Amino acid sequence: MNEAKKCSIVVFSGDMDKQFAAFIIATTAAAMGMETSMFFTFWGLQALKKKGLKTGKGFFGRMLGFMFKDIEGVGPSKMNFGGIGRWMFKKMMKDKGVTSLVELRQTAIDLGVKLQPCQMSMEVMEITKEDLIDEAADPVGAAAYVLDAQQADITLFI
Amino acid sequence: MNEAKKCSIVVFSGDMDKQFAAFIIATTAAAMGMETSMFFTFWGLQALKKKGLKTGKGFFGRMLGFMFKDIEGVGPSKMNFGGIGRWMFKKMMKDKGVTSLVELRQTAIDLGVKLQPCQMSMEVMEITKEDLIDEAADPVGAAAYVLDAQQADITLFI
Amino acid sequence: MNEAKKCSIVVFSGDMDKQFAAFIIATTAAAMGMETSMFFTFWGLQALKKKGLKTGKGFFGRMLGFMFKDIEGVGPSKMNFGGIGRWMFKKMMKDKGVTSLVELRQTAIDLGVKLQPCQMSMEVMEITKEDLIDEAADPVGAAAYVLDAQQADITLFI
Repeated sequence: MNEAKKCSIVVFSGDMDKQFAAFIIATTAAAMGMETSMFFTFWGLQALKKKGLKTGKGFFGRMLGFMFKDIEGVGPSKMNFGGIGRWMFKKMMKDKGVTSLVELRQTAIDLGVKLQPCQMSMEVMEITKEDLIDEAADPVGAAAYVLDAQQADITLFI
Repeated sequence: MNEAKKCSIVVFSGDMDKQFAAFIIATTAAAMGMETSMFFTFWGLQALKKKGLKTGKGFFGRMLGFMFKDIEGVGPSKMNFGGIGRWMFKKMMKDKGVTSLVELRQTAIDLGVKLQPCQMSMEVMEITKEDLIDEAADPVGAAAYVLDAQQADITLFI
Repeated sequence: MNEAKKCSIVVFSGDMDKQFAAFIIATTAAAMGMETSMFFTFWGLQALKKKGLKTGKGFFGRMLGFMFKDIEGVGPSKMNFGGIGRWMFKKMMKDKGVTSLVELRQTAIDLGVKLQPCQMSMEVMEITKEDLIDEAADPVGAAAYVLDAQQADITLFI
């Protein structure tokens, strides 16, 4: 018997629409029986941040933390217009019966998608394990990502 | 005998330069005998929009439609300067004998590249099948994309 | 015995943070014994530009050259604030003991990562082989990229 097919996605972007695409592909792949991992790095880490919490300790970390949203606060890559775009997209998605980013993340968790935060980004951006949702896996390095992606049938950088 | 190699590209971006890169890779792969699919989602759908036409019915859909260009109207990801960048890039490409985005799309069609629009993006953005060029394939869901990408030797998200 | 696994990365982006991610993945893959190629196209070519040099001969080429930085001059995709972001990120990375982009590129060279500039982008943007660092491979076309990516176990577009 064949092994399960595998899907490996780097989520670099913190844009709402790109994170949406990432979670749609990941949950679809997992629902189809693929072993699926998401590796969250740089701005992508916002998808795993606990709601409300401010991150960062040093001066730069705090400045960055001010811009660093959680999954409900991220805006689209185009037409954000200082937050109106985020609201508009959310409304359009809701009107069309499309599930929200938070719900998609929950579906990913329920389907066993591995949500891996990138250790180096966390260090540079002064984000601690406590800043992330409990369902996030332990932070991993680039070698763990590469090992995973080597075996994968679908590899994407989003 | 081996099966043909496969190439699967998600075109998320509506930036002229990124769409250019996507079509160059797709047409090259197809010309080399690879079975090639492009899956157009979110802003990427602009590559399949009929010229001139305005999209959207509801208030938000129409607002979005105002920003939603066709393949000749998309601008580069950097240095657009309100349209000057688009013109400059087109001129530079023409001067260097590089084919245009519309011609590249036609080459993709001639080479049998599958141009698949994402159904969910179309619903959210209020884009109908009639808004897209006739050569676009029937709209497909994420599961069709994943099935395709699973079998592919090259998988990219652009 | 099995062949070495392969990793193929298109570097389209000229953003400091994305180039950083690209080089981290490439050097990690190479250090783990993977045959690794990076294909630099459009804004990504900045990673291979010689320091200081201005590119471009025609009017448009020179205009573009004015915006076309080298690897030490590229800024992050978010929060650049006219250069402050670049400085801030560099400082945060240095404070955390993370290696710089120039050092990462040198590591890539030392590990035998193939640094391939895209010929067509060079022509359109009026960048010559002399504008690029000596360690860059000879410029290649899209067909060379596709051949390489076909064989690769990890394919990414960054």
